[in-house]
Parts: sequence; structure tokens; C-alpha cells
Amino acid sequence: MIKRIKRKKTRTKEAQKYVGQIPGTLIYTGQKANKNFIVECFDYTKNNIQETALVNIEDAKNYKDTESVTWINVDGLTHIDKIQNIGEQYGLHPLVLEDIVNTTQRPKIDEYEDYIFVVLKMLYYDKDENIVIEQVSLVLGENYVITFQESEGDVFDTIRERLRLGNGRIRGLKSDYLMYALIDAVVDNYFSIIETLGNKIEDLETELFAGQARENTNIEVQQLKREILKVRRAIFPLREIINRIEKGEHSLIYQRTLTYYRDVYDHLIQVSENIDIYREMIWSLMDMYMTTISNKMNEVMKVLTIMSSIFIPLTFLAGIYGMNFEYIPELQYRYGYFVLLGVMLVMFVALLFYFKNKKWL
Amino acid sequence: MIKRIKRKKTRTKEAQKYVGQIPGTLIYTGQKANKNFIVECFDYTKNNIQETALVNIEDAKNYKDTESVTWINVDGLTHIDKIQNIGEQYGLHPLVLEDIVNTTQRPKIDEYEDYIFVVLKMLYYDKDENIVIEQVSLVLGENYVITFQESEGDVFDTIRERLRLGNGRIRGLKSDYLMYALIDAVVDNYFSIIETLGNKIEDLETELFAGQARENTNIEVQQLKREILKVRRAIFPLREIINRIEKGEHSLIYQRTLTYYRDVYDHLIQVSENIDIYREMIWSLMDMYMTTISNKMNEVMKVLTIMSSIFIPLTFLAGIYGMNFEYIPELQYRYGYFVLLGVMLVMFVALLFYFKNKKWL
Amino acid sequence: MIKRIKRKKTRTKEAQKYVGQIPGTLIYTGQKANKNFIVECFDYTKNNIQETALVNIEDAKNYKDTESVTWINVDGLTHIDKIQNIGEQYGLHPLVLEDIVNTTQRPKIDEYEDYIFVVLKMLYYDKDENIVIEQVSLVLGENYVITFQESEGDVFDTIRERLRLGNGRIRGLKSDYLMYALIDAVVDNYFSIIETLGNKIEDLETELFAGQARENTNIEVQQLKREILKVRRAIFPLREIINRIEKGEHSLIYQRTLTYYRDVYDHLIQVSENIDIYREMIWSLMDMYMTTISNKMNEVMKVLTIMSSIFIPLTFLAGIYGMNFEYIPELQYRYGYFVLLGVMLVMFVALLFYFKNKKWL
Amino acid sequence: MIKRIKRKKTRTKEAQKYVGQIPGTLIYTGQKANKNFIVECFDYTKNNIQETALVNIEDAKNYKDTESVTWINVDGLTHIDKIQNIGEQYGLHPLVLEDIVNTTQRPKIDEYEDYIFVVLKMLYYDKDENIVIEQVSLVLGENYVITFQESEGDVFDTIRERLRLGNGRIRGLKSDYLMYALIDAVVDNYFSIIETLGNKIEDLETELFAGQARENTNIEVQQLKREILKVRRAIFPLREIINRIEKGEHSLIYQRTLTYYRDVYDHLIQVSENIDIYREMIWSLMDMYMTTISNKMNEVMKVLTIMSSIFIPLTFLAGIYGMNFEYIPELQYRYGYFVLLGVMLVMFVALLFYFKNKKWL
Amino acid sequence: MIKRIKRKKTRTKEAQKYVGQIPGTLIYTGQKANKNFIVECFDYTKNNIQETALVNIEDAKNYKDTESVTWINVDGLTHIDKIQNIGEQYGLHPLVLEDIVNTTQRPKIDEYEDYIFVVLKMLYYDKDENIVIEQVSLVLGENYVITFQESEGDVFDTIRERLRLGNGRIRGLKSDYLMYALIDAVVDNYFSIIETLGNKIEDLETELFAGQARENTNIEVQQLKREILKVRRAIFPLREIINRIEKGEHSLIYQRTLTYYRDVYDHLIQVSENIDIYREMIWSLMDMYMTTISNKMNEVMKVLTIMSSIFIPLTFLAGIYGMNFEYIPELQYRYGYFVLLGVMLVMFVALLFYFKNKKWL
Repeated sequence: MIKRIKRKKTRTKEAQKYVGQIPGTLIYTGQKANKNFIVECFDYTKNNIQETALVNIEDAKNYKDTESVTWINVDGLTHIDKIQNIGEQYGLHPLVLEDIVNTTQRPKIDEYEDYIFVVLKMLYYDKDENIVIEQVSLVLGENYVITFQESEGDVFDTIRERLRLGNGRIRGLKSDYLMYALIDAVVDNYFSIIETLGNKIEDLETELFAGQARENTNIEVQQLKREILKVRRAIFPLREIINRIEKGEHSLIYQRTLTYYRDVYDHLIQVSENIDIYREMIWSLMDMYMTTISNKMNEVMKVLTIMSSIFIPLTFLAGIYGMNFEYIPELQYRYGYFVLLGVMLVMFVALLFYFKNKKWL
Repeated sequence: MIKRIKRKKTRTKEAQKYVGQIPGTLIYTGQKANKNFIVECFDYTKNNIQETALVNIEDAKNYKDTESVTWINVDGLTHIDKIQNIGEQYGLHPLVLEDIVNTTQRPKIDEYEDYIFVVLKMLYYDKDENIVIEQVSLVLGENYVITFQESEGDVFDTIRERLRLGNGRIRGLKSDYLMYALIDAVVDNYFSIIETLGNKIEDLETELFAGQARENTNIEVQQLKREILKVRRAIFPLREIINRIEKGEHSLIYQRTLTYYRDVYDHLIQVSENIDIYREMIWSLMDMYMTTISNKMNEVMKVLTIMSSIFIPLTFLAGIYGMNFEYIPELQYRYGYFVLLGVMLVMFVALLFYFKNKKWL
Repeated sequence: MIKRIKRKKTRTKEAQKYVGQIPGTLIYTGQKANKNFIVECFDYTKNNIQETALVNIEDAKNYKDTESVTWINVDGLTHIDKIQNIGEQYGLHPLVLEDIVNTTQRPKIDEYEDYIFVVLKMLYYDKDENIVIEQVSLVLGENYVITFQESEGDVFDTIRERLRLGNGRIRGLKSDYLMYALIDAVVDNYFSIIETLGNKIEDLETELFAGQARENTNIEVQQLKREILKVRRAIFPLREIINRIEKGEHSLIYQRTLTYYRDVYDHLIQVSENIDIYREMIWSLMDMYMTTISNKMNEVMKVLTIMSSIFIPLTFLAGIYGMNFEYIPELQYRYGYFVLLGVMLVMFVALLFYFKNKKWL
Repeated sequence: MIKRIKRKKTRTKEAQKYVGQIPGTLIYTGQKANKNFIVECFDYTKNNIQETALVNIEDAKNYKDTESVTWINVDGLTHIDKIQNIGEQYGLHPLVLEDIVNTTQRPKIDEYEDYIFVVLKMLYYDKDENIVIEQVSLVLGENYVITFQESEGDVFDTIRERLRLGNGRIRGLKSDYLMYALIDAVVDNYFSIIETLGNKIEDLETELFAGQARENTNIEVQQLKREILKVRRAIFPLREIINRIEKGEHSLIYQRTLTYYRDVYDHLIQVSENIDIYREMIWSLMDMYMTTISNKMNEVMKVLTIMSSIFIPLTFLAGIYGMNFEYIPELQYRYGYFVLLGVMLVMFVALLFYFKNKKWL
Repeated sequence: MIKRIKRKKTRTKEAQKYVGQIPGTLIYTGQKANKNFIVECFDYTKNNIQETALVNIEDAKNYKDTESVTWINVDGLTHIDKIQNIGEQYGLHPLVLEDIVNTTQRPKIDEYEDYIFVVLKMLYYDKDENIVIEQVSLVLGENYVITFQESEGDVFDTIRERLRLGNGRIRGLKSDYLMYALIDAVVDNYFSIIETLGNKIEDLETELFAGQARENTNIEVQQLKREILKVRRAIFPLREIINRIEKGEHSLIYQRTLTYYRDVYDHLIQVSENIDIYREMIWSLMDMYMTTISNKMNEVMKVLTIMSSIFIPLTFLAGIYGMNFEYIPELQYRYGYFVLLGVMLVMFVALLFYFKNKKWL
């Protein structure tokens, strides 16, 4: 808990720094500072592929106007000067560069004349089972795709593999298909995220169905609610973006890849629907928890009521014959005590039956 | 309970396998493995009908370009190679084949140049009274309809019968009417599903109206809520699909069948409305349950309060005269004991009246 | 209660019969079997009117192509063959006939080339104060309106009267005005239905405002909720229907009657608004009921707490001096008993003041 | 309370009378019968103004076709024949006249060829602080505006004053500006209504924030909820009406007044927003009330628990030494009694600390 | 608390004054009376900048038709005559002037032929951590921007700095970019506002997660709810405004600045999304608080039940042997007392185990 709040405050400070800056000023707003800066580069045609790690940033421009398709992947957003350098080589608008390093950015698409800029969110669970949201920015040009990520490690390994092996369609098609493949990889990964969420919800539900309300069950429910909110916010705007691409009005997106984008769109709708169902289920969980608490209180009250209702009248009876009046005839009877015990037993049994009858026992 | 959760985990594993695959890779994501693979084939004109069980998959292509209308029904989606084979014979897009075997697919329609691909969900109750959702994919071509189901057993028997007997319009019309008939059979079946749901809700409501809140009533309410969510999700997207067909822009759908599709659409709206009403009723059930619990607690509290409020003061009185002070004048009175008993009786009756007056008795 | 549920089950059975039938098969799905079959017929021009009870169904076609306007009203939907007969005489589509006898139909409009088919719901309270929904189907042709009702008794008597007397515009205008008049009569009747509903809500509210929560108050609230749902569902779709008529694109609706349809539309909006307000008020009633229960429980708890808190300490004191220690100095004091009684009185009064102060008394 | 319900029932009876009447039948549905019938008339140009009380209704038509702008204000809707008379002089549609006297009318606009008919609601608080809704109907013609009100007393005095004094633009512009001025006066008055509502809400909130939940707080909250519903319903439809006027498609509305109508529209949006905020705040009030009740019950329970938990064990101890066993060694000890008192004191203090520790004290 | 309510009443009085005034009458409705009236003026081209404090209002018109871009910033809205003076010099519509001084205005845009009028809200926290909303009105003309603020102190200092230093694009572009820069500064400031809100929510959440429900937690939650409502209402309408500017239909907004306005729009969407998420989180907080209270009550009940259930039966036993029957055999046994103590101990331990088993201990 404490860690998250601290992190939050850091973000506040960053954001404060950001307020009032000249538009187009590059400020990295994420929490992954001091990371390495890595630029990997895939340059391929149908028959050839060349994989390089770009050490000298200046070399990036070599790939700009070639016939071959190039994927430049940049890991690490703290090296602002280098990102600015790449931006200048590829003629990116200052606001685009600002959005690349501002990781609190909402998923968005900006269509410029000779390139398309897309921001989306990559989700994964870290080792403490918290959802981590990492921003991925894509720039799609005529013959290239540039991706910017906050840190190393991503969901693109299968694409790297497919590029190297040259199986599937990927090597034979243009950069718009590459962008599709990258977005598809991100979206496919959403499925495993929401399934983990779904399993968490089911576990809690099973627990509550069994009537086991642990003390921190409601905290877990609240945390799930927040995770859902987080994921929703990262995923939902993407639908609109893909929808806009799919309409196919930008010349960089070819007719033949539209079917693929529509497929991604269908997947996103499915993810979104699941998220909304999970959300509704979480609200139900809270209801379940409340009724479980109420049921427990009912049970406690019943025990109290049964114990009190049985023994308080009996104690009263005992009190009667504990009085010190000089003349209480019953006290002199030889078997008075036993008669009274019998009466008490009868009362006891009668009350038990009464509560049994009320289904309190 | 346990079974469902286990099943869920299986699905997770399947889905994980699916992540990162090349688009167009066929992976069966359902739970009905090791089932038979059956292909039945109805080939008919107005006057003739021929019913065959296709043993050799390669024969499927014989029906493609004939004048007669052909319905090929495939049961069993685990035999991926055979499905791929049929797909190739009929020129289906790889993404279509992927969707056919991916049974977590949302109901959808994809319109291609020479065929229409529709995914919908068939619902039925299994023997444990759980709702089972089975995916049915339809491919409508010029002279054929191909249907893909996860397993044997479906709601199409009446259609088979009508085809064989040749009554009604079905034999005299084209493949678009056949597809309508198949969809109509699925939708008609939804009515019996939601009526079963409705009956379950009414039973619970009657129970709650009678003030009988069993311990697991809230669990049943939650399970109904989930069933409704499941059914909603399987049925609602279909409206949009039929709406698109009904707009009649695809050349495969003839003008004269549009009235029939509009009729299906009306039925779907009716089903959807019922589902939404049931949903609202279930939320009310939860409210009912909560008030029932509260009322019960009230009753418990009243018993406790009445018993305590009557006997605690009386016990106090008895305690007074059980004290051992040397000089307590009342104790010496000849009829002190009886006077006290009288006083106690008066108090007892007075308190009873008091509670009667408060309507607690 | 029991009766309603039974009725429901009957419906289920009917519906089951319906599933899987050939589209266009006529099956009556209502509960009003074995009723009479009555056909009344008004044939009128501006100057003449002729009122007949059609005994021979075949005579219906005589009115089809006359200059005069004809209103044929059919009561009783179980005589399917006769309805089919009328349908054939007037050239109605099989799906229209199916919708006429399927009384679970949602209000709808279907525009055919030479007639318009409208389904709506007539509402009234039966003698047990339950809302009954009866389906009325209208077919508007060039010179005729045919209405189909489930049973005798309707809201059209004022229209019959106006037709006979020839006052107002009705006799001078065409069949489209007749249909307007019929729909208007149905909609006007909605007002009295929702006013009865409104009165029921107000009564419950007054009761709850007075703090009187009877045991079955929540049941009544739930039943009102269901009634509202029922009424909503019967009325709301009609708005869309009138809206479509009002747009006036069908040649059977003349320009001059559009103002009247717009008036009906305004009335429907008003009814709908009232329904939504009542709905919100019912939700508030449930809240009211919950707080009333909570307040009552609070009151119960206070009585318990006051009684216990006053007498338990006093009983303890009495217990102290009931102990049998050989040496308890206070017991020997001459006025020990009276001093103790005084102390108890002081404690008693002090506690009373304490609770008075807390506003619990 | 009682009065409101009675009033309601009267309305029901009126409405019942209304059902089934010939469209265009004039029935006054308000509660302000037996009021005076007053017709005042302002006839003005830029330079002259003439103010008359029309005694003879027939004189109304004199103003119809003059060059000067005329405002005819009619107070009292029970004199149906006179209203019909005016309607005929100005050529109003029967449905318009029906709407004028039907005060349960929803705010609406009807555009006829040579006049515009607007119905809106004037709100004010009566002397019992209840919101009263009075219907105002406006008919805007080429050179005249006719207003119909249920009774004397309105928000138009400032406009009368401005007409008499001739300051501002009002005398120099046409009838469309006059209608604007009248509507603006009504809308301006809404602000003071919702501010009174706002103050009521704030007062209740302050009370609840201070933890003072009076017994009828929830009743007041419910009544506020109903007032908001009432006001919402009277005001919200007006937005759409002004919006339609502002679109300026009717030739009676001149280009130069559109800015003014847009201004009214902005005011209405502001009022609507406030209403929605107040509505949300009222729902929060109910929540506040519920938690206040729960907190109070918690407090009651704590007192009970503390008193019981302290004295019940002590009483038990006293009970032990009140037993009459022949051999209880402690009873013979010289200072047994004082030792026991000491033990009890220690227990008492220990329990106090325990509860203090739990923050229950 | 008291202060806020008083302030509110003042506003009511102001508003009352406002009702019924001639449209276009200038009335200042804010709370910042008696403030200074300051007019500062920046007049700049790409190469020069001149900063003046306008003492003589009449000088304002000198800047109207120059080539250079002029920013006139007016602080203090109580000097209505002076504002009217400026308005006349720049040809502003009377309704515009009315809106400038009416600070209860909703954010809005009015497009006139040669200027655009925008009203928006500047938010900041005052020293008591309350959110203050200050209205800022902007008038954008061909070569000028005039801003009107209620009082000194704003978020525009960075813009003043950038103007003076001439870095960034601002000096080289037209007045439409200046307006963008001003709006952007206001929107950027929203981020810090909502982050403060977010921190408050997180603090409360952490507290509730730790189970610490202070007595006034619900009051704080309610106040947060109100703050969110306030902020929502100030910010949300701005989206629509920027959207309208971005559509770029007004000739005063040049093509090249549209990208910047779109960027502001994206920021606003992000702020709005955060607000909606916070809102949902606050509702969850209330739920959390309710469950925390319920859990506490459960705990209290358990203590009561355990204490009562253990000691009431034991007290009964002691009562039995405190009775004064002449013949109670157990009393004569030598070790009767010790045996009974043993029995009591066993009961005590058994009950402890019972409650342990139920997880109440």
C-alpha cells in the first residue's frame, strides 16, 4: 500500500514540473528512469532481413527512404535528447515527441500527412501480481514503423521470431501490416490479463459463496475494482483508434490489411465486453459481502437471544426462591427444590422447542 | 462449483497457447475435445432432396457450383485439418477459419465478396440445469450454407424434417432462406431458455414474498445474475448482425426474404427486452433478500428485548429481597412474599401490554 | 400469487409448442381460450352508417373495395381458421397473421405496400386490481381498418358512439383518421391506468411517511415495481411506432391527420414520463422502507439498552449484599437497607437523566 | 400531507372525465376553478402604448391585423367558452385550444403555418413553501402574442413595466422579441426556485454533517426528491423547445432575436445542470442519513455492550458467594468480603481499560 | 461550514436582484467585491514587445486595429462602467458584457462575426484547501485577445514570461495561438487540481483499508463528492467548446493552430476521464465506510454475545444454589462448592472453545 502512495506523490511532483511549460517541451513523466537506452532495428524485404542494434542514433535516418520495410524499436524514454534526435531525422511534430515521452498519455491516434502516430498501453503483471501499464507509441511511415517503449521486455518476441523466420505473411507485406502485427500482439496479451482478473474474481466469489468473509475481503474487492478501472481506461480508447484506422481513409493503410484491423477490432470489443461483465460481477461481490456480514450478525444475534431468553427467566425463578422472606411456603416443602428443578427443565425444553420452531437453531 | 472453476482454468491455458500466434492459425478453444467428426449434407431443389453423410471430406466441393441448394452441417471442431480442408474447397479466408474453431468468439458477421460469414450462439440447458453455450458458425454462399457446430445435437431437427417433407416454403427458395430458417430455429430456442430463467426468478420471488430466506438464497440470486449476464452476452450482439443482414445490401440476400429476417429481428428485440426485465427483477430480488434479512434480525432483536426487559427488572426485585441486611422490614411481614409476587405479576402484565402496544408482540 | 405463477407455466407450455414451427404457422399464445368469436362491422360514409354483426366470415370481403370506410372488429383469437380466412380475403402476409394470434408480441408496426399492420397493447385493471394486458392488432387499408382483440370488452365504445351519432370529424374522414381515433382511445386509457398506479404509490408513501411499515409493505413495493415494468414494456415501444406513422411516409396516412398523430405522440411522451417518474418514486419507496426498518430496529435496541443498563448494575448491587460472607459490615447497620435503596434510587435517576440527555427517551 | 392526496384524487376524477372524449374537446384539468376571468391587452409601437382591460371578448379580434404589436394576456382557464371565442377569432386549431386548458400538458411547441404555440410552466412557492406549477401557454402570431394563465399573479410585471416605460429594446422590436422577453422572465424565475431548493438541501446537509438525524429527516429528503422530480419535469422539456425556436426555421422568428433565444437556452442548460447536481446531492443525503442511523445504532450497541460486559461477570461473582453451600471456605475469612470487593474493582477497571483501548469509550 | 452557507445566501440575494432585469443589464454576481481594477497590456510582434499598465481605459482602443498582436488582461469585475467602456471600444454585444460580469456563467463559446467569446473557469485551492472557481472570459479578435478575471493572481505567469523572452512560437504567431496558450495554461492547471483530489481520495482509502473509520470520515467523503461535482461542472463543458474551436470553421482560427487546440482537447479528455474515475472511487469509499461500520458493529455484538452467553448461564447456576429451600441435598455435601466451581470452569472453557470454533474470538 505504502509503496503505491509514494509513487503517486512522485508523479504529482513530475506533473507539477510539467504545468506551464512551453507546448512541445519534452518531459519524461514515467517512473522508469535510469534505464538503458536501446535501439534495435529490423530491415527486411520478402527475401532478406537484417537485424541491427543501432549504437549511433544518427544511423537511423539511413532507413527512412529505402524500399525495404524497417522496424525501429526504441527502449527507454529518459534519454530525451536522443528521442528528439530520432524525431528530427523522421520529421515528427514536436507535439508527437512530447506525447511519446509523456507516459500519462491516453491512447490516441494522430494522423499527419506522411505518418500516423498511435499511442497505446501494454499491460502485464509484475512479480507482486500488480498490473503494470507501459506506454507504447508507434509511428507508421511509408516504409517504416518506429516503436517507443518505456523499458526493455515486451510482447513483441513472437513478431521478432516471425520476422526472422519469414513465415506467415509478415515479410511479404508493407509497414501497415507490421503495425497491425504489433498492435495485435498487444491486444492478444490483454486476453491473458483479463483472464487473470477473471480468475481473481471467481476465487473471491467461490469464497463468498462458501460464506467465508475474511476481514480483508472487502479490501480485495476494492482493489479489484481499481484494477478493472485501470485496465478499462488503458484499453477502451483503443477501440476508437482501431475503428478510425479500419475506416481506411489514410493512404498509408492499404485495402488488403483492413480485414486484419477489423479482426483486431473484434478482439477489442470482446475484451471490452469481458471487462464490463467483470465490473458488474465485482459490484455483485460487494453485495455478496454485505449480505454475508448481515447473515453473520444475524447468527451472532440469535446466539445471544437464545442464551439470554433461556437463562434470564430461569435465573429470575432462582432469584425468587433466594429471597429471605420469613414466610415463603414453597421453601418448606420437602421436595420443593426438585419440583422447581423440574419446572425449570420443562421451561428450558419448551424454549428450546420454541426457537427450534422459529428455525433459529 | 468446483467443476466450473476447473473448466475455467483449462480455458485459460488454451487462451495462453493462443496468444502471440500468427493470425490465421487454427486453434480450437472449446471444451469438447475427442468428439466425433460428422459431416451431413442436404442437397435439394424444389422437387428433389438427397441426404448424405459425407465420409470423404474431399467430396464437399462437388456441391459448390451446382444449381441445387446445399446445406453442409459439420459437427466437431477438433479435427482442424478437415475444417481447413473444407475451408480451402470453398475459398474461405484464413481469419474465417480461425473464427470458426475459436469458440470464445463473440457473435459477429463478416461480409466477403462471394459469401457471408455469421457466428452465433446456440443455448441449451444440460442435465445439471446449467446453461451451455455452443458456437454455431454459418457460411452463406450462392447455392450453399455450411454450418459448423462444436458437437452433435442441435435445434435444427425441425428444419431437417421440413427439408425432407418439403412442406412450407423452404425447398422452393434459395440458400438465404435456408440461413434464415437456421437462425430462426436458434432464436426460437432462446425463448424457451429465457422462460426457464423467468420461472427460476419467479420461484425465488415467491419464496422471498413468503418471507422464506434460505441461507443460500443469495447464492442462487447471484448465480441467476451470472446466467443472465452469460445469456445477454450470447444474444445481444446478434441483434446488430440481423439488423445488418436485414438492411439487405449484400447481393446474396434476396429482397423477398428480408421480411423474414425482420421477423427474426423482432423476436430478438423481444428476447432482449425480456432479458433486461429479468435482470432488473434479479436486482430487486437482492433488495428483497436484504430486507428479509433485516426483518428477521428485527424479529430476533424483539424477542431478546422483550425477554430481557421483562425479566431483568423482576430479577432485580428478587435480588433486593435476597439481600442479607439485618433489618429489612418487608421480610418480616407475614404476607410480604405474596405481596411481592403480586407486584411482580402486575409489572409483568404491564410490560406485556407495553410491548403489545408497540406492536412488538 | 399462486394463480399468477400457474398462468405463467401454462404460457411456457404454449411457447414450447411454438418453438420450431414453420414460420407463418398460426398458434394462439394467450390465456383466453374458449371465448366467443364475434365480428362486428361498421360501414360508413359521411352521411350513412351501417352496423352489422358478421355471422358469415365470407361476407368480410364485400367491404374490401367499396368507397365507404369500413371498420371490422374481431373479438376472440382462438378461432384460428376464421382469422386465416379473413387474412386471405384481405391479402395479409402469413407473418402478419402469425403476429395477430401470438399475443406475446411486442408492440410493432409493419408497413406493407397496400396496408399497415400495427400491434399495440390495451391495458385495464381486472376485478382483483391486477393489470391485464390485451393485445390489439390493427390493419389499416385504403378503405378499411380491421382490429383483432383477444376477447370482448374494450375502450372503443366512445368511438362506436361517435360513429353512430356522426358528430366530430370522424365520419367525414378516411380510414387513417379512424385508426388514429382507435389508437387515441387506447392511449387515453393509459392515463387512467398510470393514475391508479400513481395513487397506489402515494398511498404507500403516505403510510411510510407516517412510519408505518407493515410486514408486507416491501412485497407491495415489489409488486408495484413489477406492474410498472409490465406497463412500461407495453407502452414504450408504441412511441416509436407513432413516431414512424407521424413521419408520414406511407401513402395511406394523409397529410391532414398527421397533426392528430402528433397529438397522440405527445400524450405518449407524457405517459412515458409519468411512468419513469413513478419508477423512480418506487425505488425511493424501497429506500424509505429500509430506513423505516432501521429506525425501528434502533428503537428496539434503545429499549433493550435502557432496560439492561439501568437494572443490571442495580441487580449487581443487590447481589453484593446477598452474599453470605460472615463479616460484611454494611449488613449490620440499622438503616443499611434504606441507605442502599436510596443509593439505588439515585443511580436509577442518574441513568434516566443520562439517557434523556442522549435523546434516547 | 392529507391535502395533497385529496387534491390528487380530484385530478383523477377530472382525468377520467377526459378519457374517451372527442379530440379537440375543451376540458379544464387544473385545480383553480371559480377564479376570475381577466383579459389585459397591451398594444404598442415604438412610440405609443395603449393598455386596456378587455371586457368584451369580441374586441380581441381588433388587434389581430394591426401594424402595432399586441400582447393579450388571459388569466383564468375555467371560462372555456370565452377561450374558445378567442381561439376562433385568431384561427387557432382545436387541438391548440384543448392543450391550453389541459393544464397537465407537458411543455411543448407546435408550429403552425401562421402562428407558433408554446406551452411552458411557471414555478413559484406558495405560502406553505410548496412548489406550485402553473401552466402558461403562448401563441405567437405576426403582430401579436397571446398568453393564457391559470390564475392572476405572474412573473411578467417587469415586462409590463418595461413596455410602459419604453426603455430597453422591447418596444422597438416585433412580437418574437416580446415572446422572448416573456419566456426569459419565466426562466429567470427558475433560478430563484432552484436556489431555494439548493438552500433546503444545504440546510439538511449541515444538519446531517452535525450528526443530527431527526426522526423525519428522511421524510424531508424524500419530499425534496419529489420536488426535484417535479421541477425537472416542468423545466427539462423547455430546453428542446427553445432549441427548436433557436434553429430559426420558422419565418415568425427573425434573425436578430436568435441571439436572445440562444441566451435563454444557455440559462436553461445552467438551470438543468443545477437540478441534476441537486438531485445527486439529495441521493447523497439519503446515504448520509443511512450512515448516521447506523452510527447511532453502533453507539447504542456500545453502551449496552459496555454495561453488560462489565456488570454481568461481577454479578456472577456476587452470585457465587450468595450460594448456601455449607462449606465455602472464603466466606469464613475475616476480610473475605473486602478482598472480593477489591477483586471486583480490579476487574471493573480492567474492563474499562479494555473498552477504552478498543476506542468504545 | 457556517461560512459557506452564509456566502450562499449572499449569492441568493444577488441572483434575486438579477431576476427580471432587462437583458444586457450588467450585474456582477461574484463574491470578490471592492477589489482593485487593473488593466495590463502586452503588445507584440515577432521582434518587439511592449508591456503597459493601462491607467486610462480610453487608451484600450489604440490597440484595436494595429498590426501587432495585443493581449489586454482585465482584473476585477466590479467596476462595471469601465468594463462597459472597454466593451464599447471593441464593439462587444451587450449580452457578452452581461456574461463577463455574471460569474455564475457556465463555460460557453459564442461566435460573433468579428470576434469569438469564450467563458471558462480557472480552478485553484485557497489557503484553507477549498477549491476556488474563478471565471475567466476571453475575447479573441483579429489582432487582440482580451481576458477578464475576477481578481488578481492567475495561471498566466509562464505566458507572460514567454512573451517577454520571446522563446517558443508564441511571439511569431497570431492572436489565435495566444488564446490557445492561455486556455492551455488553464487546462494544464486542472491537472494539479485533480491530482490533489486524487491524493485526498487515496488518503481516505488507505485509512479505510486499515479499518480506521473516524467519526467524520463520511463527512469528508461527502465533501469530496461535492468538490468533484463542482470541478466536473467547471471543466466538462469546456470540452465541447474546444471541440467547436477545433472544427476550425471560424476564420479567426488559422489552420496551423488547430493541432494545438486538438492537443488541449486531448488533455481535457484525460482530465475528464480522471474525474469520472475519481467519482466512481468516491462512491466506492462510501461503500467501504458502510462495510467498515457494519464490521465494527459485528465486533461489538460479538463481545456482548460472548460475555452474556458465558456468564448468564453461570449466574443461573449460582442462583440455583443461592435458593433457600430447606432441603437441597447438594448444599450439604462437603465438597459441593468445589465440585460446582469445577463444573462452572468446565462450562466456561467449553463455551470459550465453542466461540473459538465459530471464529468469534
